[in-house]
Amino acid sequence: MKRTYESQQTCPIARSLDVLGDRWTMLLMRDLHNGHCRFADLLRSLDGISPNLLSARLKRLEEEGIVTRRLYSVHPPRAEYVLTEPGQAFKPVLDQITAWGSRFRPVETNGVS
Amino acid sequence: MKRTYESQQTCPIARSLDVLGDRWTMLLMRDLHNGHCRFADLLRSLDGISPNLLSARLKRLEEEGIVTRRLYSVHPPRAEYVLTEPGQAFKPVLDQITAWGSRFRPVETNGVS
Repeated sequence: MKRTYESQQTCPIARSLDVLGDRWTMLLMRDLHNGHCRFADLLRSLDGISPNLLSARLKRLEEEGIVTRRLYSVHPPRAEYVLTEPGQAFKPVLDQITAWGSRFRPVETNGVS
Repeated sequence: MKRTYESQQTCPIARSLDVLGDRWTMLLMRDLHNGHCRFADLLRSLDGISPNLLSARLKRLEEEGIVTRRLYSVHPPRAEYVLTEPGQAFKPVLDQITAWGSRFRPVETNGVS
């Protein structure tokens, strides 16, 4: 399951990216930090992700202790996802990526509406 | 070439990850920040990457204005790669990932030497 670079595992960056280095996972972390916690909300905010992929990414984050899953309805069963302490502590990474992207990756205006 | 999530392009995180979201690219940025600038050095420090993949990643960073390529020997032709201002400005992202990984992704000790 884990995508590692075995000889890189002494590096905390490589170990972080093993869990969170996937693009959709980073965007999922962004949306969890933005307060989206229900599957349907996340599916909407992550426009373009498939339900299966979202489900797999959430499961992996749960296995890695980055989110916890909580049922908020039993009939029908519906879950919400809440960031754990490690999950919350990832915010400075997202903030720095946001700052960098805002500064150095301006929105492309290519005439497509 | 760009791996985008079209509807995500209003987000600076998504735009950053389009360029730097690949795991090897992040590790390459780490090593460039650590002062490795020659192809052979990078190939060594990124133990596990293939020369072709390293070459492709460097080319992409050059195209995106994140590194510049400079010949330091003409016979034989040998290049070194230097971070531009946008490349240097990525350091806080790496620092935050390092901090998170050091705290929440301790080295696994699984008995494999």
